[in-house]
Amino acid sequence: MAGEYPTHLENIIRSLARLPGIGRRTAERLASALLDWERQELAELGTAIVELPDKIHPCKECGNLSDEDLCRICRDPRRDTTLLCVVEQARQIPVIEKCGHYHGLYHVLGGRLSPLEGIEASDLNIGSLYERLGKLTVTEVILSTSPDVEGEATAAYLAEELHGHFDLQVSRIAQGIPVGADLNYADAATMAMAINSRRRVP
Amino acid sequence: MAGEYPTHLENIIRSLARLPGIGRRTAERLASALLDWERQELAELGTAIVELPDKIHPCKECGNLSDEDLCRICRDPRRDTTLLCVVEQARQIPVIEKCGHYHGLYHVLGGRLSPLEGIEASDLNIGSLYERLGKLTVTEVILSTSPDVEGEATAAYLAEELHGHFDLQVSRIAQGIPVGADLNYADAATMAMAINSRRRVP
Repeated sequence: MAGEYPTHLENIIRSLARLPGIGRRTAERLASALLDWERQELAELGTAIVELPDKIHPCKECGNLSDEDLCRICRDPRRDTTLLCVVEQARQIPVIEKCGHYHGLYHVLGGRLSPLEGIEASDLNIGSLYERLGKLTVTEVILSTSPDVEGEATAAYLAEELHGHFDLQVSRIAQGIPVGADLNYADAATMAMAINSRRRVP
Repeated sequence: MAGEYPTHLENIIRSLARLPGIGRRTAERLASALLDWERQELAELGTAIVELPDKIHPCKECGNLSDEDLCRICRDPRRDTTLLCVVEQARQIPVIEKCGHYHGLYHVLGGRLSPLEGIEASDLNIGSLYERLGKLTVTEVILSTSPDVEGEATAAYLAEELHGHFDLQVSRIAQGIPVGADLNYADAATMAMAINSRRRVP
Protein backbone atom coordinates (compact mmCIF):
# COMPACT_ATOMS: atom_id res chain seq x y z
CA MET A 1 0.00 0.00 0.00
CA ALA A 2 2.79 2.42 0.88
CA GLY A 3 4.13 4.73 -1.76
CA GLU A 4 0.94 5.38 -3.66
CA TYR A 5 0.39 8.77 -2.06
CA PRO A 6 2.83 11.56 -1.14
CA THR A 7 3.71 11.36 2.58
CA HIS A 8 1.66 14.40 3.53
CA LEU A 9 -1.48 13.05 1.89
CA GLU A 10 -0.81 9.58 3.29
CA ASN A 11 -0.70 11.08 6.80
CA ILE A 12 -4.12 12.68 6.29
CA ILE A 13 -5.50 9.40 4.92
CA ARG A 14 -4.24 7.47 7.96
CA SER A 15 -5.69 10.03 10.36
CA LEU A 16 -9.09 10.00 8.67
CA ALA A 17 -9.09 6.18 8.61
CA ARG A 18 -9.01 6.25 12.43
CA LEU A 19 -12.52 7.73 12.48
CA PRO A 20 -15.41 5.32 13.12
CA GLY A 21 -16.90 3.84 9.96
CA ILE A 22 -14.14 5.28 7.77
CA GLY A 23 -12.07 2.56 6.11
CA ARG A 24 -8.89 3.03 4.14
CA ARG A 25 -10.76 3.43 0.84
CA THR A 26 -13.17 6.02 2.17
CA ALA A 27 -10.28 7.89 3.79
CA GLU A 28 -8.54 8.01 0.40
CA ARG A 29 -11.70 9.35 -1.21
CA LEU A 30 -12.10 12.01 1.48
CA ALA A 31 -8.45 13.08 1.27
CA SER A 32 -8.77 13.32 -2.52
CA ALA A 33 -11.85 15.49 -2.09
CA LEU A 34 -9.92 17.80 0.25
CA LEU A 35 -7.46 18.44 -2.60
CA ASP A 36 -10.28 20.23 -4.42
CA TRP A 37 -11.14 22.51 -1.50
CA GLU A 38 -10.20 26.16 -1.44
CA ARG A 39 -7.27 27.14 0.79
CA GLN A 40 -9.66 29.12 3.02
CA GLU A 41 -11.99 26.14 3.51
CA LEU A 42 -9.08 23.88 4.43
CA ALA A 43 -7.79 26.48 6.90
CA GLU A 44 -11.20 26.70 8.58
CA LEU A 45 -11.64 22.95 9.00
CA GLY A 46 -8.03 22.28 9.95
CA THR A 47 -7.83 25.07 12.49
CA ALA A 48 -11.17 24.08 14.01
CA ILE A 49 -9.87 20.52 14.49
CA VAL A 50 -6.61 21.73 16.06
CA GLU A 51 -8.48 24.05 18.43
CA LEU A 52 -11.18 21.52 19.35
CA PRO A 53 -9.79 20.62 22.82
CA ASP A 54 -9.41 24.30 23.74
CA LYS A 55 -12.80 25.42 22.45
CA ILE A 56 -15.08 22.63 23.61
CA HIS A 57 -15.29 21.63 27.27
CA PRO A 58 -17.95 20.38 29.68
CA CYS A 59 -20.57 22.88 30.87
CA LYS A 60 -19.75 23.76 34.50
CA GLU A 61 -23.35 23.14 35.47
CA CYS A 62 -24.54 20.02 33.61
CA GLY A 63 -21.51 18.58 31.79
CA ASN A 64 -22.94 19.19 28.29
CA LEU A 65 -20.50 20.06 25.49
CA SER A 66 -20.03 23.82 25.44
CA ASP A 67 -17.84 26.58 24.09
CA GLU A 68 -18.70 28.81 27.08
CA ASP A 69 -18.71 28.23 30.85
CA LEU A 70 -22.39 27.37 30.73
CA CYS A 71 -23.86 25.43 27.80
CA ARG A 72 -26.66 26.94 25.74
CA ILE A 73 -29.24 24.80 27.46
CA CYS A 74 -28.23 25.96 30.95
CA ARG A 75 -28.11 29.55 29.63
CA ASP A 76 -31.58 29.32 28.05
CA PRO A 77 -34.20 30.90 30.39
CA ARG A 78 -37.02 29.18 28.48
CA ARG A 79 -36.02 25.65 29.58
CA ASP A 80 -38.36 23.86 31.98
CA THR A 81 -36.33 23.74 35.21
CA THR A 82 -38.69 21.26 36.87
CA LEU A 83 -37.42 18.47 34.57
CA LEU A 84 -33.90 17.02 34.59
CA CYS A 85 -32.77 14.31 32.20
CA VAL A 86 -29.75 12.20 33.22
CA VAL A 87 -27.58 10.91 30.32
CA GLU A 88 -24.36 8.92 30.23
CA GLN A 89 -22.52 11.04 27.67
CA ALA A 90 -22.80 14.66 26.54
CA ARG A 91 -23.08 13.50 22.93
CA GLN A 92 -26.44 11.92 23.74
CA ILE A 93 -27.97 15.32 24.47
CA PRO A 94 -28.29 16.34 20.78
CA VAL A 95 -30.16 13.07 20.11
CA ILE A 96 -32.75 14.02 22.72
CA GLU A 97 -32.82 17.68 21.66
CA LYS A 98 -33.57 16.68 18.08
CA CYS A 99 -36.74 14.80 18.99
CA GLY A 100 -38.22 18.15 20.05
CA HIS A 101 -40.24 16.64 22.91
CA TYR A 102 -38.00 17.56 25.82
CA HIS A 103 -37.45 21.07 27.08
CA GLY A 104 -35.99 20.48 30.53
CA LEU A 105 -32.41 20.44 31.85
CA TYR A 106 -29.75 17.74 31.55
CA HIS A 107 -27.09 16.14 33.69
CA VAL A 108 -24.16 14.21 32.22
CA LEU A 109 -22.95 11.27 34.31
CA GLY A 110 -19.76 10.88 32.28
CA GLY A 111 -20.24 7.12 32.01
CA ARG A 112 -22.21 4.31 33.62
CA LEU A 113 -21.63 1.79 36.38
CA SER A 114 -19.44 -1.02 35.06
CA PRO A 115 -17.98 -3.53 37.50
CA LEU A 116 -16.04 -5.11 34.61
CA GLU A 117 -14.29 -1.83 33.80
CA GLY A 118 -14.01 -0.89 37.47
CA ILE A 119 -16.32 2.11 37.12
CA GLU A 120 -18.12 2.77 40.41
CA ALA A 121 -20.64 5.37 41.47
CA SER A 122 -17.85 7.59 42.80
CA ASP A 123 -16.38 7.77 39.27
CA LEU A 124 -19.56 9.31 37.89
CA ASN A 125 -20.84 12.88 38.25
CA ILE A 126 -23.38 11.89 40.89
CA GLY A 127 -22.21 14.25 43.66
CA SER A 128 -22.80 17.23 41.39
CA LEU A 129 -26.22 15.79 40.46
CA TYR A 130 -27.22 15.80 44.14
CA GLU A 131 -25.88 19.34 44.54
CA ARG A 132 -27.95 20.53 41.60
CA LEU A 133 -31.09 18.74 42.75
CA GLY A 134 -30.62 20.43 46.14
CA LYS A 135 -30.62 23.92 44.68
CA LEU A 136 -32.82 23.54 41.58
CA THR A 137 -36.62 23.23 41.49
CA VAL A 138 -36.64 19.82 39.81
CA THR A 139 -39.77 17.71 40.36
CA GLU A 140 -38.97 14.86 37.95
CA VAL A 141 -35.70 13.18 37.00
CA ILE A 142 -35.78 11.20 33.73
CA LEU A 143 -33.15 8.45 33.64
CA SER A 144 -31.99 8.25 30.04
CA THR A 145 -29.09 5.81 30.35
CA SER A 146 -28.65 3.17 27.62
CA PRO A 147 -31.14 0.29 27.43
CA ASP A 148 -28.45 -2.36 28.02
CA VAL A 149 -27.27 -4.23 31.13
CA GLU A 150 -24.94 -1.54 32.44
CA GLY A 151 -27.28 1.30 31.55
CA GLU A 152 -30.15 -0.46 33.33
CA ALA A 153 -28.00 -1.12 36.38
CA THR A 154 -26.99 2.54 36.49
CA ALA A 155 -30.63 3.63 36.17
CA ALA A 156 -31.70 1.20 38.93
CA TYR A 157 -28.94 2.47 41.23
CA LEU A 158 -29.80 6.10 40.61
CA ALA A 159 -33.53 5.51 41.03
CA GLU A 160 -32.98 3.98 44.46
CA GLU A 161 -30.55 6.68 45.55
CA LEU A 162 -32.77 9.51 44.31
CA HIS A 163 -35.85 8.11 46.01
CA GLY A 164 -33.81 7.85 49.22
CA HIS A 165 -32.50 11.41 49.15
CA PHE A 166 -35.09 13.54 47.38
CA ASP A 167 -38.82 13.95 47.20
CA LEU A 168 -39.26 13.85 43.43
CA GLN A 169 -40.59 11.64 40.66
CA VAL A 170 -38.07 9.38 38.94
CA SER A 171 -38.85 8.02 35.48
CA ARG A 172 -37.12 5.93 32.84
CA ILE A 173 -37.31 6.42 29.06
CA ALA A 174 -39.66 3.90 27.41
CA GLN A 175 -38.28 0.86 25.64
CA GLY A 176 -40.09 -1.01 22.88
CA ILE A 177 -40.32 -1.46 19.14
CA PRO A 178 -38.66 1.48 17.35
CA VAL A 179 -41.10 3.70 15.43
CA GLY A 180 -41.27 2.57 11.81
CA ALA A 181 -39.49 -0.73 12.48
CA ASP A 182 -40.54 -4.03 10.94
CA LEU A 183 -42.04 -6.29 13.63
CA ASN A 184 -40.67 -9.32 11.76
CA TYR A 185 -37.16 -8.30 12.75
CA ALA A 186 -37.73 -7.27 16.36
CA ASP A 187 -35.43 -9.12 18.77
CA ALA A 188 -36.96 -11.12 21.61
CA ALA A 189 -35.76 -8.80 24.39
CA THR A 190 -37.24 -5.73 22.70
CA MET A 191 -40.46 -7.57 21.91
CA ALA A 192 -40.75 -8.68 25.56
CA MET A 193 -40.25 -5.09 26.69
CA ALA A 194 -42.86 -3.90 24.20
CA ILE A 195 -45.39 -6.44 25.50
CA ASN A 196 -44.69 -5.82 29.17
CA SER A 197 -44.72 -2.03 28.82
CA ARG A 198 -47.86 -2.05 26.66
CA ARG A 199 -50.14 0.97 26.94
CA ARG A 200 -53.86 0.77 27.22
CA VAL A 201 -55.60 2.21 24.17
CA PRO A 202 -58.29 4.52 25.55
CA MET B 1 -31.34 21.70 13.74
CA ALA B 2 -29.41 24.73 14.95
CA GLY B 3 -28.50 24.98 18.59
CA GLU B 4 -27.90 21.33 19.32
CA TYR B 5 -24.13 21.69 19.18
CA PRO B 6 -21.77 24.42 20.40
CA THR B 7 -20.84 26.74 17.53
CA HIS B 8 -17.29 25.44 17.24
CA LEU B 9 -18.43 21.82 16.93
CA GLU B 10 -21.24 22.84 14.57
CA ASN B 11 -18.65 24.47 12.29
CA ILE B 12 -16.65 21.24 12.15
CA ILE B 13 -19.82 19.24 11.44
CA ARG B 14 -20.76 21.56 8.56
CA SER B 15 -17.26 21.36 7.08
CA LEU B 16 -17.18 17.57 7.27
CA ALA B 17 -20.67 17.34 5.74
CA ARG B 18 -19.27 18.98 2.59
CA LEU B 19 -17.15 15.90 1.90
CA PRO B 20 -18.50 13.40 -0.65
CA GLY B 21 -20.66 10.67 0.86
CA ILE B 22 -20.72 12.36 4.28
CA GLY B 23 -24.22 13.43 5.28
CA ARG B 24 -25.20 15.52 8.28
CA ARG B 25 -25.60 12.49 10.52
CA THR B 26 -22.26 10.98 9.61
CA ALA B 27 -20.59 14.36 10.06
CA GLU B 28 -22.06 14.55 13.57
CA ARG B 29 -20.75 11.07 14.35
CA LEU B 30 -17.28 11.95 13.04
CA ALA B 31 -17.14 15.23 14.97
CA SER B 32 -18.20 13.38 18.14
CA ALA B 33 -15.42 10.88 17.57
CA LEU B 34 -12.90 13.71 17.25
CA LEU B 35 -13.86 14.80 20.78
CA ASP B 36 -12.27 11.57 22.02
CA TRP B 37 -8.98 12.13 20.21
CA GLU B 38 -5.82 13.21 22.00
CA ARG B 39 -4.76 16.83 21.58
CA GLN B 40 -1.68 15.68 19.67
CA GLU B 41 -3.71 13.62 17.20
CA LEU B 42 -6.06 16.53 16.54
CA ALA B 43 -3.09 18.84 16.00
CA GLU B 44 -1.56 16.45 13.47
CA LEU B 45 -4.74 16.03 11.42
CA GLY B 46 -5.79 19.68 11.64
CA THR B 47 -2.36 21.05 10.74
CA ALA B 48 -2.03 18.59 7.86
CA ILE B 49 -5.37 19.79 6.45
CA VAL B 50 -4.40 23.46 6.80
CA GLU B 51 -1.05 22.85 5.10
CA LEU B 52 -2.45 20.64 2.33
CA PRO B 53 -2.32 23.27 -0.46
CA ASP B 54 1.29 24.19 0.42
CA LYS B 55 2.55 20.64 0.75
CA ILE B 56 0.93 18.89 -2.18
CA HIS B 57 1.40 20.12 -5.76
CA PRO B 58 1.73 18.62 -9.22
CA CYS B 59 4.99 16.84 -10.09
CA LYS B 60 6.94 19.11 -12.47
CA GLU B 61 7.52 16.19 -14.80
CA CYS B 62 4.28 14.19 -14.98
CA GLY B 63 1.65 16.15 -12.99
CA ASN B 64 1.20 13.45 -10.32
CA LEU B 65 0.45 14.59 -6.74
CA SER B 66 3.73 15.19 -4.96
CA ASP B 67 5.27 16.77 -1.90
CA GLU B 68 8.57 17.32 -3.74
CA ASP B 69 9.43 18.82 -7.16
CA LEU B 70 9.40 15.36 -8.71
CA CYS B 71 6.89 12.72 -7.58
CA ARG B 72 8.11 9.42 -6.21
CA ILE B 73 7.32 7.64 -9.46
CA CYS B 74 9.44 10.04 -11.54
CA ARG B 75 12.20 9.78 -8.89
CA ASP B 76 12.13 5.97 -8.85
CA PRO B 77 14.98 4.60 -11.05
CA ARG B 78 13.32 1.18 -11.16
CA ARG B 79 10.32 2.34 -13.21
CA ASP B 80 10.08 1.11 -16.80
CA THR B 81 10.75 4.26 -18.83
CA THR B 82 9.63 2.65 -22.10
CA LEU B 83 6.00 2.74 -20.92
CA LEU B 84 3.93 5.88 -20.33
CA CYS B 85 0.35 5.82 -19.10
CA VAL B 86 -1.84 8.87 -19.77
CA VAL B 87 -4.52 9.61 -17.17
CA GLU B 88 -7.04 12.43 -16.80
CA GLN B 89 -6.48 13.19 -13.12
CA ALA B 90 -3.57 12.65 -10.74
CA ARG B 91 -5.88 10.87 -8.29
CA GLN B 92 -6.31 8.06 -10.83
CA ILE B 93 -2.63 7.12 -10.53
CA PRO B 94 -3.00 5.37 -7.12
CA VAL B 95 -5.81 3.25 -8.60
CA ILE B 96 -3.43 1.98 -11.29
CA GLU B 97 -0.50 1.66 -8.87
CA LYS B 98 -2.56 -0.52 -6.55
CA CYS B 99 -3.26 -3.13 -9.22
CA GLY B 100 0.46 -3.88 -9.20
CA HIS B 101 0.59 -4.64 -12.94
CA TYR B 102 2.02 -1.38 -14.19
CA HIS B 103 5.57 -0.20 -13.57
CA GLY B 104 6.00 2.51 -16.19
CA LEU B 105 5.68 6.30 -16.07
CA TYR B 106 2.57 8.49 -16.05
CA HIS B 107 1.35 11.70 -17.58
CA VAL B 108 -1.56 13.68 -16.15
CA LEU B 109 -3.70 15.48 -18.73
CA GLY B 110 -5.48 17.55 -16.10
CA GLY B 111 -8.89 16.82 -17.63
CA ARG B 112 -10.39 15.55 -20.85
CA LEU B 113 -11.78 17.05 -24.04
CA SER B 114 -15.28 18.38 -23.37
CA PRO B 115 -16.95 20.58 -25.98
CA LEU B 116 -19.87 21.09 -23.57
CA GLU B 117 -17.59 22.52 -20.89
CA GLY B 118 -15.44 24.32 -23.45
CA ILE B 119 -12.36 22.22 -22.68
CA GLU B 120 -10.16 21.94 -25.77
CA ALA B 121 -6.87 20.19 -26.45
CA SER B 122 -4.98 23.39 -25.62
CA ASP B 123 -6.44 23.31 -22.09
CA LEU B 124 -4.86 19.91 -21.38
CA ASN B 125 -1.22 19.08 -20.62
CA ILE B 126 -0.62 17.78 -24.12
CA GLY B 127 2.29 20.07 -25.03
CA SER B 128 4.27 18.77 -22.06
CA LEU B 129 3.37 15.20 -23.09
CA TYR B 130 4.94 15.77 -26.51
CA GLU B 131 8.01 17.32 -24.88
CA ARG B 132 8.43 14.31 -22.62
CA LEU B 133 7.93 11.82 -25.45
CA GLY B 134 10.58 13.70 -27.39
CA LYS B 135 13.22 13.29 -24.70
CA LEU B 136 12.19 10.00 -23.03
CA THR B 137 12.70 6.48 -24.42
CA VAL B 138 8.98 5.62 -24.45
CA THR B 139 7.96 2.89 -26.90
CA GLU B 140 4.32 2.50 -25.83
CA VAL B 141 1.73 5.02 -24.61
CA ILE B 142 -1.24 3.54 -22.75
CA LEU B 143 -4.31 5.76 -22.93
CA SER B 144 -6.08 5.36 -19.60
CA THR B 145 -8.79 8.01 -19.90
CA SER B 146 -12.28 7.19 -18.60
CA PRO B 147 -14.43 4.68 -20.51
CA ASP B 148 -17.17 7.25 -21.23
CA VAL B 149 -17.96 9.49 -24.21
CA GLU B 150 -15.55 12.28 -23.34
CA GLY B 151 -12.80 9.92 -22.19
CA GLU B 152 -13.13 7.93 -25.42
CA ALA B 153 -13.04 11.11 -27.52
CA THR B 154 -9.91 12.24 -25.67
CA ALA B 155 -8.27 8.86 -26.22
CA ALA B 156 -9.20 8.86 -29.92
CA TYR B 157 -7.82 12.38 -30.36
CA LEU B 158 -4.55 11.53 -28.59
CA ALA B 159 -4.14 8.26 -30.50
CA GLU B 160 -4.38 10.06 -33.82
CA GLU B 161 -2.05 12.85 -32.74
CA LEU B 162 0.52 10.47 -31.25
CA HIS B 163 0.54 8.27 -34.36
CA GLY B 164 1.06 11.40 -36.45
CA HIS B 165 3.98 12.75 -34.42
CA PHE B 166 5.82 9.77 -32.94
CA ASP B 167 6.90 6.29 -33.87
CA LEU B 168 5.49 4.37 -30.92
CA GLN B 169 2.76 1.96 -30.02
CA VAL B 170 -0.47 3.46 -28.67
CA SER B 171 -2.82 1.29 -26.63
CA ARG B 172 -6.07 1.70 -24.72
CA ILE B 173 -6.98 0.01 -21.41
CA ALA B 174 -9.37 -2.93 -21.92
CA GLN B 175 -13.06 -2.54 -21.27
CA GLY B 176 -15.39 -5.38 -20.39
CA ILE B 177 -17.15 -7.11 -17.54
CA PRO B 178 -15.51 -6.17 -14.21
CA VAL B 179 -13.73 -9.05 -12.50
CA GLY B 180 -16.06 -10.72 -10.01
CA ALA B 181 -19.18 -9.00 -11.39
CA ASP B 182 -22.51 -10.74 -11.88
CA LEU B 183 -23.21 -11.14 -15.61
CA ASN B 184 -26.93 -10.78 -14.89
CA TYR B 185 -26.40 -7.13 -14.08
CA ALA B 186 -23.98 -6.14 -16.84
CA ASP B 187 -25.24 -3.18 -18.84
CA ALA B 188 -25.65 -3.53 -22.61
CA ALA B 189 -22.75 -1.22 -23.52
CA THR B 190 -20.31 -3.08 -21.29
CA MET B 191 -21.58 -6.45 -22.54
CA ALA B 192 -21.14 -5.30 -26.16
CA MET B 193 -17.58 -4.20 -25.37
CA ALA B 194 -16.89 -7.53 -23.68
CA ILE B 195 -18.15 -9.42 -26.75
CA ASN B 196 -16.34 -7.29 -29.30
CA SER B 197 -13.06 -7.29 -27.36
CA ARG B 198 -13.23 -11.03 -26.68
CA ARG B 199 -9.93 -12.85 -26.38
CA ARG B 200 -9.20 -16.15 -28.00
CA VAL B 201 -8.69 -18.92 -25.44
CA PRO B 202 -5.55 -20.74 -26.54
